Amino acid sequence: MNILYDERLDGRLPDVNKADLLKALQHAIPDLDILWREEELKPYECDGLSAYRTTPMLVALPRRLEQVQTLLELCHKQNVPVVARGAGTGLSGGALPLEKGLLLVMARFNTILHIDPAARTARVQPGVRNLAISQAAAPFGLYYAPDPSSQIACSIGGNVAENAGGVHCLKYGLTVHNLLKIEVLTIEGERLTLGSEAYDSPGFDLLALFTGSEGLLGIITEVTVKLLPKPQVAKVLLASFDSVEKAGRAVAEIIAAGIIPGGLEMMDNLAIRAAEDFIHAGYPVDAEAILLCELDGVEADVHDDCQRVRDVMTEAGATEVRQARDEAERVRFWAGRKNAFPAIGRLSPDYYCMDGTIPRRELPGVLQGIARLGEEYGLRVANVFHAGDGNMHPLILFDANQPGELHRAEALGGKILELCVQVGGSITGEHGVGREKINQMCAQFNSEELTLFHAVKTAFDPLGLLNPGKNIPTLHRCAEFGAMHIHAGQLPFPELERF
Amino acid sequence: MNILYDERLDGRLPDVNKADLLKALQHAIPDLDILWREEELKPYECDGLSAYRTTPMLVALPRRLEQVQTLLELCHKQNVPVVARGAGTGLSGGALPLEKGLLLVMARFNTILHIDPAARTARVQPGVRNLAISQAAAPFGLYYAPDPSSQIACSIGGNVAENAGGVHCLKYGLTVHNLLKIEVLTIEGERLTLGSEAYDSPGFDLLALFTGSEGLLGIITEVTVKLLPKPQVAKVLLASFDSVEKAGRAVAEIIAAGIIPGGLEMMDNLAIRAAEDFIHAGYPVDAEAILLCELDGVEADVHDDCQRVRDVMTEAGATEVRQARDEAERVRFWAGRKNAFPAIGRLSPDYYCMDGTIPRRELPGVLQGIARLGEEYGLRVANVFHAGDGNMHPLILFDANQPGELHRAEALGGKILELCVQVGGSITGEHGVGREKINQMCAQFNSEELTLFHAVKTAFDPLGLLNPGKNIPTLHRCAEFGAMHIHAGQLPFPELERF
Repeated sequence: MNILYDERLDGRLPDVNKADLLKALQHAIPDLDILWREEELKPYECDGLSAYRTTPMLVALPRRLEQVQTLLELCHKQNVPVVARGAGTGLSGGALPLEKGLLLVMARFNTILHIDPAARTARVQPGVRNLAISQAAAPFGLYYAPDPSSQIACSIGGNVAENAGGVHCLKYGLTVHNLLKIEVLTIEGERLTLGSEAYDSPGFDLLALFTGSEGLLGIITEVTVKLLPKPQVAKVLLASFDSVEKAGRAVAEIIAAGIIPGGLEMMDNLAIRAAEDFIHAGYPVDAEAILLCELDGVEADVHDDCQRVRDVMTEAGATEVRQARDEAERVRFWAGRKNAFPAIGRLSPDYYCMDGTIPRRELPGVLQGIARLGEEYGLRVANVFHAGDGNMHPLILFDANQPGELHRAEALGGKILELCVQVGGSITGEHGVGREKINQMCAQFNSEELTLFHAVKTAFDPLGLLNPGKNIPTLHRCAEFGAMHIHAGQLPFPELERF
Repeated sequence: MNILYDERLDGRLPDVNKADLLKALQHAIPDLDILWREEELKPYECDGLSAYRTTPMLVALPRRLEQVQTLLELCHKQNVPVVARGAGTGLSGGALPLEKGLLLVMARFNTILHIDPAARTARVQPGVRNLAISQAAAPFGLYYAPDPSSQIACSIGGNVAENAGGVHCLKYGLTVHNLLKIEVLTIEGERLTLGSEAYDSPGFDLLALFTGSEGLLGIITEVTVKLLPKPQVAKVLLASFDSVEKAGRAVAEIIAAGIIPGGLEMMDNLAIRAAEDFIHAGYPVDAEAILLCELDGVEADVHDDCQRVRDVMTEAGATEVRQARDEAERVRFWAGRKNAFPAIGRLSPDYYCMDGTIPRRELPGVLQGIARLGEEYGLRVANVFHAGDGNMHPLILFDANQPGELHRAEALGGKILELCVQVGGSITGEHGVGREKINQMCAQFNSEELTLFHAVKTAFDPLGLLNPGKNIPTLHRCAEFGAMHIHAGQLPFPELERF
């Protein structure tokens, strides 16, 4: 298999001269906005994962497809690495720039091209914000289902690149399940259409391959998504438990009962108290855990399901189950959950948000394991997460100003991901691999699988110019690391490493 | 991009000596069942698309993973093409053997390994029949949703290879939407795990890439699927229309109303009369078109939806809407639809079943177009299809014993697919490309897109040994053909070509 791409990463990037590149770009695309002064580049040195920072060599802000096409052709010819960026809200450093590379910001492609209410589709440019799609579809009684918590700011192009999730993905799927078609440009500037508006598309499923590829395969220039009719009604139940394990068990049993809630979220005591202090959502501050379960659909159906979920929760040991009495209370219940991260931010100078996925049946055991690990490392861990998906977000609280605490937090984070992989889960749920989890990929996949990833990468980008150093680690990196794949619980898991 | 694979196809396959290969296989895997006599090979000369026939050089029937692994290593080393086959029910010739290649039959891998009712998953070997999974899951109130009409015979490995659909795919998705994980062997005999039992899997989405890849990327050795709880109730409505266009419009409006039926099927007058003669389903033989609409879910929900669908159909011009009075009538309504193909087979010595997909809104126009084309070519066309998906199955009736009729039928078929592509649809819905539609792929995709397909193929199978000549045409073939991609309705569409 071809490992050309492999050989290009990890500091072995081509040496690009900033002044030369700037001149070449200005010459080739006179009307392109390019940032090159130190102070202009500063705002682009990180994305939502602020722990990793690099000043990009140049930032390009195109407005037209032809500009992007010419830019890519030029970078390809001159061997310049290109990192794409949407709104920069990603949480794994997928849009972290390169010192020796161009940052291609697609934010100005922000036009909604067409809403087709009969076909229930929206065709939009990649810089359109996630929420803006639902807002444009609202007059037709439609919306776009995936709702990452950054939905007010994040762009659909970034959602596709990261295969973004959200609270409602349990029922409505990830980004990949809500996509019909994308237009992309390869690093050589070739235009490709992946997927189709028809039900199925022949040939290899390159649309799915592209979704979640984190900018390694091409630049997204247009996105056509499915829209869904807004559910007639949505009801929320809030259940209290005297242990996180019981709450975990209730989650597994709700799903096993054949009910698929619109959302099913868990918060532990630390998160409950933080959110209640901040938002006054009406949460039971003495509960060890709460579940928020939203049921949506047609009236009669939702009514029946509410009763069934109540029964299952009570049987699983809920000490109290409350249904939001009205829309105002429903919104309040969710506001507590949606603001849980900033709420926890008030408890501690710093926190480190993890994103691991586990099979649902493992929830009670993994929650116990996380608590044990937290004690061992002497750090508080709050849990707020998409319980229905098994997508956990442990938040490790620490103070970077205390010597050693950052290091301890990172080590604990590594241990928690280790635990996820050990029970058959994965090192990322919805935040992607990006730069943050590049080392953990060595544990998730064996060398044959990683080699195959590189071969696929090479099929799209033979020179390895698109977002190098993200998503797929080189075998070299994994070998240096001493952490090739995990066998039978034997986990030589390394701590997170800085870029 | 690497086009090594490209250069190997279209008759430029390696020259393999049958006796040498047989000896080598018998030596390397003494307990492997191999068929090599002419009369033993005969049953394997075609799959469900019987118009294409080739006698394979050898047929291998392994029972154990290690046998497959050794066999692939040997074929890789000796440069022998390998075509995988499940139950051989495919309708596009995807399992058509090669004269100079080995046919690898995976049918004996037919063990259901594990049903997990709590996680709602089934882990099975690739030769397990589609329906057998649902039967094994039935005691837990669960089933496997995708239901191709061959479900009693077709194997799950073949379903994954072809991304099989079925009547219920409108609501429950294609095979790719119901898969969690597969185990595969590469042509080099390497074992890979694609996907995971957790909600999402990091890295590129190779599971989706593999699904529908028609045996070009590797051999499937294990499949883990999602199971769904059986719906509480299912009701069927039968609506009559005095024109196919009105029925087509009703389909678009049902979906636009936000209702997602379990199944939504259309039959035109020719198909109605054929089915009624054969099955006595109680169909209205004077109707120009009927719609069968199944609604499933919980009682109250289904009741509401039935009323809404009735209203929409009536408004769209239905002359009559009947609800199956009881389970017996519901089964009878479906029996007519499910036996429509053999019923039409009674009307004509031969028929040619097409499989194109179009955006739903185009249904009325495309149905008119098909009727016009049928008149032009002097052939009858019956329409029986998954209307909700826009997945059409026009059946062209002809008599191969009448000089020129086969040729005319094929030409008409080409024109119909052409029409599908022109309105933004695709040349295949659920039957795959296989050998049958390899030429039409030249019209569906441009040379950049085809080159990318080849590059992806090369990433998995650098020597191009897995199922060459299927799914992805060589650029050489498309060039010879004079049919590179369709631009703005300009369609130099070639007639179907025999292998």
